[in-house]
Amino acid sequence: MNKIYNPGASEWLELLKRPTSTVNDIEETVNKVFAEVIEDGDAAIEKYTEIFDGFKPENVRVTSMEIDDARNRISQELRDAIHLAYANVEKFHAAQKTEKVVVETAEGVQCWQEKRPIQKVGLYIPGGTAPLFSTILMLAIPAAIAGCKEIVLCTPPNKEGNIHPAILYTAHLCGVTKIFKVGGIQAIAAMTFGTQTIPKVYKIFGPGNQFVTVAKQLATKHNVAIDMPAGPSELLVVADESANAAFVASDLLSQAEHGIDSQVILISTSEKFMDEVEKEIEEQIKVLPRKEIAEKAIENSKLIFIEDKEVALEIINEYGPEHFIVCTENDNYFVENVQNAGSVFIGNYTPESAGDYASGTNHTLPTNGYAKQYSGVNLDSFMKNMTFQKISQEGIRNIGPAIELMAEAEGLQAHKNAVSLRLIDLNK
Amino acid sequence: MNKIYNPGASEWLELLKRPTSTVNDIEETVNKVFAEVIEDGDAAIEKYTEIFDGFKPENVRVTSMEIDDARNRISQELRDAIHLAYANVEKFHAAQKTEKVVVETAEGVQCWQEKRPIQKVGLYIPGGTAPLFSTILMLAIPAAIAGCKEIVLCTPPNKEGNIHPAILYTAHLCGVTKIFKVGGIQAIAAMTFGTQTIPKVYKIFGPGNQFVTVAKQLATKHNVAIDMPAGPSELLVVADESANAAFVASDLLSQAEHGIDSQVILISTSEKFMDEVEKEIEEQIKVLPRKEIAEKAIENSKLIFIEDKEVALEIINEYGPEHFIVCTENDNYFVENVQNAGSVFIGNYTPESAGDYASGTNHTLPTNGYAKQYSGVNLDSFMKNMTFQKISQEGIRNIGPAIELMAEAEGLQAHKNAVSLRLIDLNK
Repeated sequence: MNKIYNPGASEWLELLKRPTSTVNDIEETVNKVFAEVIEDGDAAIEKYTEIFDGFKPENVRVTSMEIDDARNRISQELRDAIHLAYANVEKFHAAQKTEKVVVETAEGVQCWQEKRPIQKVGLYIPGGTAPLFSTILMLAIPAAIAGCKEIVLCTPPNKEGNIHPAILYTAHLCGVTKIFKVGGIQAIAAMTFGTQTIPKVYKIFGPGNQFVTVAKQLATKHNVAIDMPAGPSELLVVADESANAAFVASDLLSQAEHGIDSQVILISTSEKFMDEVEKEIEEQIKVLPRKEIAEKAIENSKLIFIEDKEVALEIINEYGPEHFIVCTENDNYFVENVQNAGSVFIGNYTPESAGDYASGTNHTLPTNGYAKQYSGVNLDSFMKNMTFQKISQEGIRNIGPAIELMAEAEGLQAHKNAVSLRLIDLNK
Repeated sequence: MNKIYNPGASEWLELLKRPTSTVNDIEETVNKVFAEVIEDGDAAIEKYTEIFDGFKPENVRVTSMEIDDARNRISQELRDAIHLAYANVEKFHAAQKTEKVVVETAEGVQCWQEKRPIQKVGLYIPGGTAPLFSTILMLAIPAAIAGCKEIVLCTPPNKEGNIHPAILYTAHLCGVTKIFKVGGIQAIAAMTFGTQTIPKVYKIFGPGNQFVTVAKQLATKHNVAIDMPAGPSELLVVADESANAAFVASDLLSQAEHGIDSQVILISTSEKFMDEVEKEIEEQIKVLPRKEIAEKAIENSKLIFIEDKEVALEIINEYGPEHFIVCTENDNYFVENVQNAGSVFIGNYTPESAGDYASGTNHTLPTNGYAKQYSGVNLDSFMKNMTFQKISQEGIRNIGPAIELMAEAEGLQAHKNAVSLRLIDLNK
């Protein structure tokens, strides 16, 4: 593993660089599929499902029979686990509801701010070997709490045209209104432009491979919003000798198994602890089923020794990790002063996987340094703020003259007139 | 003016089309300037300021002497007006502060959500004949309330290298930390990449011409966020005979004077009222200084008669206007049921220009139908939501087994291990 000792500030930029990849050649494919879906609708969806997923669908909409059936194809144990996670995610996101903000800014000038749901949202859930039903909890639960009217879910079928029962079960549990067996670029295209069968939505959420990521980016050129820009998953741990080296190693590995481009960083004020973690990683990695992936990710990763906790904090804020585990004698110092992180995990018994599945916090978080300016998915991601105002005769008398002066100074006479006409009328 | 009577749903799409323009040829220019600013920093900024603004700057940073001087160059009256607007905007945005959301989702599982300020933000304020100092109030006041550390403002100088004193005065009043005499693409490039003099920021706000708009869009490819996608300003009024035709006409014109691509729409359940508004527009437009602009915008605009208020509501939600004025006998019907609008103005004495300047609400709002999924600028635009969690030994015992099951079902063994190790340790 890469071990770095007290790096100087001039080395930070290089040190904190994320593994990235280019997307230009993918853009062409995306634009081609987009154009065909605009032109041919469902026919294009069917065509690309056959090409990319090896399955020719008769009907891409999942039926209620398939949903009923899914329930019986997963164990009672797993259903119970999903329900436990559901309850916690529901509790945490329901608590994020806010009241109307009502302010009489000046006498007779009533202003308020109110959140209303985005009417139509689309969720993308990747398929493949790992059925990410946990992501459905993270997206569909807040969408339902927000009150989104249409919650569409697209996920690719396997070669037999089936979807993993845990995905169907969770989607149904969370109140998804329509499920479609469509994946990849064609799914993003369908939700962006709409087809005869699949509704156009206003905002698309969810993870995906490079094709899906680029398709989501390009969709934003067509009046659709997306949850956030995507990048490989990442974890930064700050830990000292008060932490448990085996636990820290297991957390770093849980991040590393996501993909070969995942990045994990340990910052420690103890060289001894750093060496212990390294040894633990070498041991634990041996028995992992996704060992080869984790090994590649670990190659990109760094153990950084930093003597001074102020410097450690600075480098953490410069990096802006998606996941940030704090396990030090003085956790509060980092918890209170971290400015840029997606989600923060505190103490020896708070593994990142708790937040990935069942503690209640959301696992859709900003990667690639976007924690500096983006929120993770939360209840507000499914709503928009609207403002309202109602001004009385007294109100316009109070603020009208100021509006006239400012509009005039900005050279916008018609803006002034709209007030003047009213003031003249009131003085009649 | 275009008058339409009871349009059928199949005509809506065409009817609600916005005037748009292509940007592809601008992209090339933007990429060229970006590349030079990355390469040459300040030197590129100076070069393009000379080319585009006709002024060769020695020092692009505004000095405190210039700021002191600005105060004396605007009237006491205008200063008072700015202070009145400041107070209202401050009051409304300060009221948007929210508390930490703390939830114990399961026993021993403490989760919380907290907003922290985006550390560095950049504001772009256009120059030219109309100095938009009101936009500074709308952007810098919430930035300061949020607690952003660095609030940078870029605005183009005139040929003498000066900036309108109202801009300098307002920026200083609102707590902008650094003001630069830089405009256009080069300003967006500077705030995206940073130069020797101008700091890199994490999020860029503010309006601008086509060049600025495209530059902001492309900046998002370089780890910067922007406030929202931009488009021409627009207003939709729904009014019946309880409204004042002269007032409604003045509101439509105040929107129309923004630019030839502005769009104004009146929807009315009264043909007679529609005709009155048309007559009033024809009268009032004659004396406007920006008459030519307003006339062009009015050509694009529509008066739509719709008999049925349910249909009117549906078409309004389909359009998703940036500004929405409601002036009907039963305002509540529209106010309560509108789902897609940036800001809503209610009643005869609530002109849109009140919200543009001084009522307290923000005037940076989603255009081009983006009210369906975007909020206008508000306090949260300058912050990001972060989540935190701290799990006790009891807590991990409570939710650990569910995490193990779910991680296993998703094929992520290392995620499971991170929990198993802790549970085993606790059972020792």
